[in-house]
Amino acid sequence: MSTLLLRGGRPWGHDAPTDVFVQDGVIRSIGPSDDAADVEVDAAGRLILPGLVDAHCHLDKTLFGGPWVPHPASDALADRIATERRLRSELGIPDVERITDLLTAMVAGGTTSTRSHVDVAPELGLTGVEAVREAIGRIGGRIDVQLVAFPQYGILSAPRTAELMETALADGVEGVGGIDPAGMDGDPARHLDIVFDLAERHGAMVDIHLHDGGSLGVWELELICERTSALGLHGRVAVSHAYALGQATPAEQDRVAERIAEAGVTITTAAVYDFPVAPVKRLRAAGANVACGHDGIRDLWGPYGSGDMLDRTMHLAYRNTFRRDDDIELALEAATHGGAVAIGRRPYGETRDPIAVGDPADLVVVPASTPAEAVVARPTRDLVVKGGRVVARDGVLS
Amino acid sequence: MSTLLLRGGRPWGHDAPTDVFVQDGVIRSIGPSDDAADVEVDAAGRLILPGLVDAHCHLDKTLFGGPWVPHPASDALADRIATERRLRSELGIPDVERITDLLTAMVAGGTTSTRSHVDVAPELGLTGVEAVREAIGRIGGRIDVQLVAFPQYGILSAPRTAELMETALADGVEGVGGIDPAGMDGDPARHLDIVFDLAERHGAMVDIHLHDGGSLGVWELELICERTSALGLHGRVAVSHAYALGQATPAEQDRVAERIAEAGVTITTAAVYDFPVAPVKRLRAAGANVACGHDGIRDLWGPYGSGDMLDRTMHLAYRNTFRRDDDIELALEAATHGGAVAIGRRPYGETRDPIAVGDPADLVVVPASTPAEAVVARPTRDLVVKGGRVVARDGVLS
Repeated sequence: MSTLLLRGGRPWGHDAPTDVFVQDGVIRSIGPSDDAADVEVDAAGRLILPGLVDAHCHLDKTLFGGPWVPHPASDALADRIATERRLRSELGIPDVERITDLLTAMVAGGTTSTRSHVDVAPELGLTGVEAVREAIGRIGGRIDVQLVAFPQYGILSAPRTAELMETALADGVEGVGGIDPAGMDGDPARHLDIVFDLAERHGAMVDIHLHDGGSLGVWELELICERTSALGLHGRVAVSHAYALGQATPAEQDRVAERIAEAGVTITTAAVYDFPVAPVKRLRAAGANVACGHDGIRDLWGPYGSGDMLDRTMHLAYRNTFRRDDDIELALEAATHGGAVAIGRRPYGETRDPIAVGDPADLVVVPASTPAEAVVARPTRDLVVKGGRVVARDGVLS
Repeated sequence: MSTLLLRGGRPWGHDAPTDVFVQDGVIRSIGPSDDAADVEVDAAGRLILPGLVDAHCHLDKTLFGGPWVPHPASDALADRIATERRLRSELGIPDVERITDLLTAMVAGGTTSTRSHVDVAPELGLTGVEAVREAIGRIGGRIDVQLVAFPQYGILSAPRTAELMETALADGVEGVGGIDPAGMDGDPARHLDIVFDLAERHGAMVDIHLHDGGSLGVWELELICERTSALGLHGRVAVSHAYALGQATPAEQDRVAERIAEAGVTITTAAVYDFPVAPVKRLRAAGANVACGHDGIRDLWGPYGSGDMLDRTMHLAYRNTFRRDDDIELALEAATHGGAVAIGRRPYGETRDPIAVGDPADLVVVPASTPAEAVVARPTRDLVVKGGRVVARDGVLS
């Protein structure tokens, strides 16, 4: 079928410029190539990165691409939740146009796969899932979008949410979410029972928002690891944010990191605001998988965000005080391979080159001399390739 | 002399679109204008901000605009200092080309004034001052640059540094710096004696890097306030970074903020890496002045930085968890008015409109609906005006 040849670029992990040949959506060779190809691109002097993976966003809530909406809530969590509930319909959320605009920006910036949490609650039904699916249809396969049924207002706190989550899973949503089993729902064991039961019965991925801090949050993280191991869900469970882990002492971080790696759990971090950031280097040293996501982008939870995963990777590297190239590459690994593992597109614990023969041809070509420079400078992406197809050039959708 | 008319823009602080008329480098009117002008610019639909002030950078050290230099040091402070000393000459630092490139980027991004610390040490002499001055000459008045003689390797720790700082001040350098009077030099009283003595005798501004954390840092901050009051230097002293203040409890922050305001000291923050950030809202509530700076940009202390002060303002707002427009405007105030106060271009404690008749015509025109949107979205600057002269358009120097 269709072929693509990137000539003379430097694939991340390869020292010298070379060619990358793609056929039927898969990388067939990395090395000097005489093949003729349907599409040839001169990548000389450019760096080739794997497609970026935004492992945690909230597409359904976004106001991206529309007029500026001043943040309407105070800093108190209760007011922020109440404000979102009150203003959703007034602002026309979920808005297929806005979601499409955001997906467009994500693709233009080189994000080739994403996991989006989508709010599921009795007052909302599955309107979020429907809107996101319509936007996905409009973006025409330029990005792989995995959905998680997310109980934003709790499961126990918002009766009938679990039934709706089950309906979403039965309807093809791939993941089941949870949120602060203690802090939000007040009954961690029961909350996790529901989440893991849904995951087991539907073969779903699990991704739990954990904002609970301190020893409470660490304890919940360990509870999640325990269930993951007990149910044989190695590689299928993520904990997002995990602020408690960022707050822990280095010794405790190392201890918990080993438990996380053993259970095959992913820590997904977004490095938002001033909240504690997951210790990427310690987690990776223990063999735990780390992914990176954008979290909310221009929504009623906060006005920030661009959809550009290199921008988010910079925040992750910066908040980890990564200065050296090899350290900054750990953040980029989280935003590429780590994200692919998080959303179940690659095996947990696999050690591999960033770009290898046999990989799906999800690629980003950038004018940078090293991966670290790409993260720091965040230049406009020259080319974005999804499954062997050119989906964006010079920051604009093809 | 020369006149400039910005038609139909929205100056920050004015609700409706209007005209801004500039003559001889000063804003002469804000309101509908029939004046003919040498230069007319259609600013309809655009926001007009005051020129951005980068109140803390290190021009002399920058590698900006050159090839990527992977960060060569480990995380240990001693190794970072040793690495800088070792690699300076090898990398050709200070480099007038690199400094000029950075000043160019700063101007293009709307920075109209800056304070640059310049390393002064026996092994360096005043080569940094000379290089920065040559670059300033090349940039042709497009930005107001104030220099501070900065003892990067200590004053007591590096004998003869004080004499060199004095030479720099006698040669017209406007500010005298200090660095961790306890943590770097081990003798806070003696360190501050030297710094404040130089300031008094040369009528210089003071700007002290204070990384020392915890109760030590807070104590040093209070020492600095005490000397500032005792010597009548209200409005002429800044403390940069002040991590200890970011680490303090809210109650202690409030207590110290009052002392800072009373002494007329500025807190200059750069919101770098994962280091504690100054509590902007509490400081402003107490009446203390807050400024914002970029700190090092692409140098041997770290590879990050763009020279774009809206980018830096975003970091400051983000790390302060500012979501509401009025909060985000506090960060932008620090990056404009607060910076002008910090470098002595405006009186300490003055309450004023962001843009007012009689102000120097340092202005930035951006495609944004509100100041908060400008900070969050950081669009390319349509127009930058320095002293009534158009110095950049569409992100490129005029």
